[in-house]
Amino acid sequence: MSDFKSLDNQQLHQLKDKLLDQYHGFKSRGITLDITRGKPCSEQLDLALEMLGCVNSKEYRTEDGTDGRNYGGLDGIPEAKKLFSRYLEVAPEEIIIGSNSSLNLMHDTFLRAMLKGVSEDSPPWGKLPKIKFLCPSPGYDRHFFICDYLGIEMIPVEINAAGPSMDLIEAMVAEDESIKGIWCVPKYSNPTGAVYSDEVVDRLASMHVKASDFRIFWDNAYAVHHLADKPARLKNILSACKKAGNPERVFIFGSTSKITFAGGGLAMMAGSAKNMARVKKQITFQTIGPDKLNQLRHVKFFKNIKGIEDHMNKHTAILKPKFDAVQRVLEKELSGKNIAQWSHPAGGYFVSIDTMQGCAAAVVRLAAEAGVKLTPAGSTYPYMQDPLDRNIRIAPSFPPLEDVRSAMQLVCICIQLASIDKLTRD
Amino acid sequence: MSDFKSLDNQQLHQLKDKLLDQYHGFKSRGITLDITRGKPCSEQLDLALEMLGCVNSKEYRTEDGTDGRNYGGLDGIPEAKKLFSRYLEVAPEEIIIGSNSSLNLMHDTFLRAMLKGVSEDSPPWGKLPKIKFLCPSPGYDRHFFICDYLGIEMIPVEINAAGPSMDLIEAMVAEDESIKGIWCVPKYSNPTGAVYSDEVVDRLASMHVKASDFRIFWDNAYAVHHLADKPARLKNILSACKKAGNPERVFIFGSTSKITFAGGGLAMMAGSAKNMARVKKQITFQTIGPDKLNQLRHVKFFKNIKGIEDHMNKHTAILKPKFDAVQRVLEKELSGKNIAQWSHPAGGYFVSIDTMQGCAAAVVRLAAEAGVKLTPAGSTYPYMQDPLDRNIRIAPSFPPLEDVRSAMQLVCICIQLASIDKLTRD
Repeated sequence: MSDFKSLDNQQLHQLKDKLLDQYHGFKSRGITLDITRGKPCSEQLDLALEMLGCVNSKEYRTEDGTDGRNYGGLDGIPEAKKLFSRYLEVAPEEIIIGSNSSLNLMHDTFLRAMLKGVSEDSPPWGKLPKIKFLCPSPGYDRHFFICDYLGIEMIPVEINAAGPSMDLIEAMVAEDESIKGIWCVPKYSNPTGAVYSDEVVDRLASMHVKASDFRIFWDNAYAVHHLADKPARLKNILSACKKAGNPERVFIFGSTSKITFAGGGLAMMAGSAKNMARVKKQITFQTIGPDKLNQLRHVKFFKNIKGIEDHMNKHTAILKPKFDAVQRVLEKELSGKNIAQWSHPAGGYFVSIDTMQGCAAAVVRLAAEAGVKLTPAGSTYPYMQDPLDRNIRIAPSFPPLEDVRSAMQLVCICIQLASIDKLTRD
Repeated sequence: MSDFKSLDNQQLHQLKDKLLDQYHGFKSRGITLDITRGKPCSEQLDLALEMLGCVNSKEYRTEDGTDGRNYGGLDGIPEAKKLFSRYLEVAPEEIIIGSNSSLNLMHDTFLRAMLKGVSEDSPPWGKLPKIKFLCPSPGYDRHFFICDYLGIEMIPVEINAAGPSMDLIEAMVAEDESIKGIWCVPKYSNPTGAVYSDEVVDRLASMHVKASDFRIFWDNAYAVHHLADKPARLKNILSACKKAGNPERVFIFGSTSKITFAGGGLAMMAGSAKNMARVKKQITFQTIGPDKLNQLRHVKFFKNIKGIEDHMNKHTAILKPKFDAVQRVLEKELSGKNIAQWSHPAGGYFVSIDTMQGCAAAVVRLAAEAGVKLTPAGSTYPYMQDPLDRNIRIAPSFPPLEDVRSAMQLVCICIQLASIDKLTRD
């Protein structure tokens, strides 16, 4: 297809008329589709149904004989710590298994940092006049919401396929003591699918930071959520931090929300034994302990790390056709037109599209008016402000394949219409 | 039996020799007993085993059709809100169903208060030079730990069978703006078994407070945990607050930890619709939502409030003999000796013993040396400091009946020994 930027105004108007016909045709079908959220679909959730029976009137004791129905235990049952420490590639004493939401663990880690600091010898962040956080963007809105809620200034940092721009980061953290940390989704990043390169991991772990209480919030949400035949490999950040002499620099998070049940899964956090010992001491004040029965359910269902991997292959089989469909429609409708670029994720839950500058909000609005709900424009940036108004996040996991195709057809029509509007306006 | 205080030194020494024989006899049996914690026993936990099957490969949808396995919902599934709003005697819009730990909800409410204040128009408690909390004592150690952790000064307030001393409380809160709240376990209080009278509830709800952001933390942990045939009735604090024109004054907490599974239950908080709306807004930043499947399990198991009440009658049948045994041993061994008083709880999980001043720590130590572990002396007071060193908390729920009897026999021997030591020393 022709590069839109090589077309003259007349050609663009002709094209627009054709696209408007298609747009109104779609709209008249009265379809309502929602590709806003990275939710597993029913077929994925069905894969773990058997887990519900793994704890029952006979099976409720942990391997050390503890009654999973009673009080006791703060940081997870031993077999869950064993299994998920392998999952996060840390030692069992470096992990805490919490409740059902890793966002909860991240939020609580921030609140503790605000009130108590991140170590015994560093000040509560809330006592400092100003603190800032680095936010590789586009990124995950719920991360940014936590910072906004707590009055933490967010600094967007560009991210590419190998991770955030390290030159920029290193320059900033070496100078500014008020920069206390960075949000990272290091594998199959939300929404771009970026996988942090070994170099990025090493540089994050070893860079000189002015703030001795600088922390990496490493949200490894998609550790085993592959779409490609050959899973991407992520360098172990905790090992890298230890090797660089900064063992306390990283807090790692993960969950089974997109492995077993979203909301009925397990969340976990990991870090140096010293960091985890301090967190354990602090959560003594917070909770009587996690739901051990749900931990037991998970371990009995998966048995070992191979069990998780095999299970995730079944997820891949369900998700891959949907992600392939997104790529095929984008390729067919937009390639060669020089109006959009998009990610080709090898895992995770999203496809990220960058339109021409100033077009994303228009695309989202046009799509909504025709019945297709997209993640609000700007959501993937701090303060919900996409400075170039160009990023669109596509979440194809939940709807049926046919709906994904239809929705993407419309999205492509809307991207073209918004681009033509921009080109004829400029 | 004789009043110890009427005995002369020689008589006391003779008695001591006899008691020491019994003490060493007990010790030589090499028994190890633990009556430290209010844990349900296995038989109680067995009562809810059937619940584990209530969510299964066919049953995972809420009554409005929501897939309980997926994301969605922040404040509880509708049927859980309906059931447990009846349990806490509030409206469905006045309740939030959380995860598994009410301590967690209380802790988080404190952390939010520290960072964000308890209302839109009041300052973060953490920004104030000093804040204080009223702590009816003896009380629950985990409440006091939260205050201590956050640097909140605790003011112990005497508690009697009808609740805390209201004259004292009213005088303090009317004058001191730094007093921001009070901890209450209003029904079958931990450890004294106190049930707040209607008058106490009304006075708490209506008293004039200098701090407009004063909050009652109403931990109704034992709402249906009766031991007597006729359950005690607790006046509705939220209604009383509304009637007094202070609808935002109270945060109510509860859980099913001692109804279904300790650690695998549901926790909930309640309060005015305005308070709950603000909390809901704040937990948007904290979590992707509670474990809906466990909520569904509970509702399917109990069906309605009658289901909970019937279930609790089965608990009573298991617990009452243990509590009766405690009373019988105390009565037989200590009555008339004028060295101890104890509670006669009509519900809850504890018996509270007040020894002579300065004896509790000695009793706990003596018992430990003979193999019976008691809650550490002082635990029931702020800062772990029992000013009169006399309160001992007995938790008879977990051990088998015979062990409860044995443990109490030893406790009575130790109380007598410590009393004689004190009387012969003074």
